[in-house]
Amino acid sequence: MKPLPDAWGSAAAGLRVDLIDTPALVVDLDAMERNIQRMADFARKHGVRWRPHAKLHKSAEIALLLQKAGACGACVQKLSEAEALAAGGVNDLFISNEILAANKLLRTARLAAGLAARGGRLALAVDSEEGIARLAEAMDKAGSDAGIDVFVEIDVGQGRCGVPPGTEAVALAQSIARRHRLRFAGLHAYHGGAQHLRGVGERRSAIAAAVAAAAHTRTLIEAAGLPVGLITGAGTGTLVHEAASGVYGELQAGSFLFMDADYARNERESAQPAFEHALFVKTQVISARATHVVCDAGHKSHAIDSGLPLVHGLPPERALRFANGGDEHGILYPEGPKARLPALGRMLWLVPGHCDPTVNLHDHLIGVRGGLAHGVVERIIRVDARGAVT
Amino acid sequence: MKPLPDAWGSAAAGLRVDLIDTPALVVDLDAMERNIQRMADFARKHGVRWRPHAKLHKSAEIALLLQKAGACGACVQKLSEAEALAAGGVNDLFISNEILAANKLLRTARLAAGLAARGGRLALAVDSEEGIARLAEAMDKAGSDAGIDVFVEIDVGQGRCGVPPGTEAVALAQSIARRHRLRFAGLHAYHGGAQHLRGVGERRSAIAAAVAAAAHTRTLIEAAGLPVGLITGAGTGTLVHEAASGVYGELQAGSFLFMDADYARNERESAQPAFEHALFVKTQVISARATHVVCDAGHKSHAIDSGLPLVHGLPPERALRFANGGDEHGILYPEGPKARLPALGRMLWLVPGHCDPTVNLHDHLIGVRGGLAHGVVERIIRVDARGAVT
Repeated sequence: MKPLPDAWGSAAAGLRVDLIDTPALVVDLDAMERNIQRMADFARKHGVRWRPHAKLHKSAEIALLLQKAGACGACVQKLSEAEALAAGGVNDLFISNEILAANKLLRTARLAAGLAARGGRLALAVDSEEGIARLAEAMDKAGSDAGIDVFVEIDVGQGRCGVPPGTEAVALAQSIARRHRLRFAGLHAYHGGAQHLRGVGERRSAIAAAVAAAAHTRTLIEAAGLPVGLITGAGTGTLVHEAASGVYGELQAGSFLFMDADYARNERESAQPAFEHALFVKTQVISARATHVVCDAGHKSHAIDSGLPLVHGLPPERALRFANGGDEHGILYPEGPKARLPALGRMLWLVPGHCDPTVNLHDHLIGVRGGLAHGVVERIIRVDARGAVT
Repeated sequence: MKPLPDAWGSAAAGLRVDLIDTPALVVDLDAMERNIQRMADFARKHGVRWRPHAKLHKSAEIALLLQKAGACGACVQKLSEAEALAAGGVNDLFISNEILAANKLLRTARLAAGLAARGGRLALAVDSEEGIARLAEAMDKAGSDAGIDVFVEIDVGQGRCGVPPGTEAVALAQSIARRHRLRFAGLHAYHGGAQHLRGVGERRSAIAAAVAAAAHTRTLIEAAGLPVGLITGAGTGTLVHEAASGVYGELQAGSFLFMDADYARNERESAQPAFEHALFVKTQVISARATHVVCDAGHKSHAIDSGLPLVHGLPPERALRFANGGDEHGILYPEGPKARLPALGRMLWLVPGHCDPTVNLHDHLIGVRGGLAHGVVERIIRVDARGAVT
């Protein structure tokens, strides 16, 4: 475990929100807990499991909080994330990604054995015969008989990893089933490209196609004599469709926890739970000119791959526009008709465009209770898997 | 000091380059040292000081290496970066940015005293009367008589921080000079907006205007009876112009050390030293389809604020195009007429679009000697100020 950083993390339990040093990544714990409850209710209502993606929060503490609320475990994207969360007590992990390197596959096999020994389990996605053969070799080398769950990833529209739906997936499922220490667990069918389609209709058709492709592939695999235990996928942008499909048995959505500015730009689905923003960058105005002011948060404080942050808490007529000021600055211009530039020294709150890579910039999250205006720091949440890209 | 990470940093001295786990941030030490030598020669030829910006490398080890080659110290953008580099032995630091928060100004005053006590110095930029007053108050509270160097930041074209060139700057210089523990050190006049203008002519005119504005402001301040000790600024994109100006006495350029893919997109200045790429992301192909392959480096491994990475080491006819695959994936398509998709498991080298925020994603740099094809790891360089945004 990494020690909690101190030199530039001056926030501690009991500190008033207005005294938190800037820029800082702050979680509104009340809002986060409301989001968790909304998701738990939604999954229960639809009778689906939920395995929120920990690539968002990268924190064992939060993964365990989600499990306490009903989540069946956590997804991760990288082996090193799985290792960090396992070290923090998370027992049920799915690496929703392919691994090809021999050293990593050996670590994977050891992690699977370690989790099994304490009553947990590890799952991995594959999309090639080579990946299956290398995994089986590593599992044999590690010598554990606990085995590992293996999902075949099918490409249901994103055009990234995964074999095409259909016969290629059948061949991979059969190959997995032939290996002594691998268990064919089902299909990983995540449509990342559909999450940020703006219109309700676009997202609905994209997921309808994904559902049809996944169901068709399941039929073919089952016709070959292999039961498909689970079809897993879905993100915050589309989860209402996968949940209602009767085909997906597990939702991987993670972003509902914090809600990116970019998800808020999607046209709202009426069936979608009313998730709210719960992750903010606190920033201070450090320079004030006649035409603009400059705050101390740039893209080393928040990720901008899905657009720039929004300035939170202003009515539309007083809105400010955030413009990119480089690594360490944001430039704020008046946008609403009655917008006034904030004074030098004033604190502002930003909603990050994309929460996952924003969290990954920070060693810890500052958990605040009682709101952004008058709350206090309740606890510091360690980002256990920060920088865990391998 | 943070301990060196271990779980997901498996590279150690002596490891062959082809065995480094992916994705990994790798410095070609030979290329970096050639870049340092080119910069040292260039600065000597033009008779200017160089104070490379450490917001790029965030490493005390590299800052000291640059000083050994002739650099007069380091620039940083944030106080916490200055603290981290000072803890690593760097003695001469300029925070080329504004600080307004009382807690940070007190830390600034303490750092100034600490550096002075060991024969070093700290400098800070200001662009408001409020900033000067608060700094003076913090310096009085800290009670050290060593003082602090203060530069007035003027906006020479970027439209971010800094007062307009001219009379406002004179008033600030006079205000600094009146304060017991502040020393008016000169003008900070960095034109960030000019660095990535593509054409040689555009960059030349932008810097000609900046030089004129800085010189005019100096004349006004000196007419008011205050000597202007130094005009400091310049980045890797424009340094040939500031160096030749006779007005700028110090170059802040940092990126020459590693050379971003985006700087390489600039039209080359004939007078510009032939800086070469020295920072790479090593990545592996983890999924292979008929139309594309997917590698294990996404924007959690490299920053994409200045464009996507380039695939290194391929001749134009075999070029591959890197497309954004999200946080943890890159998607590679054939681009050159004879391009062939790399096989599953194959290692590739990426040149990051923007090195500064890329380094900030990683806890350490893997320093390689002997080239990317057949070299070995010589040493692990700690990114001391990773995440230091306050």
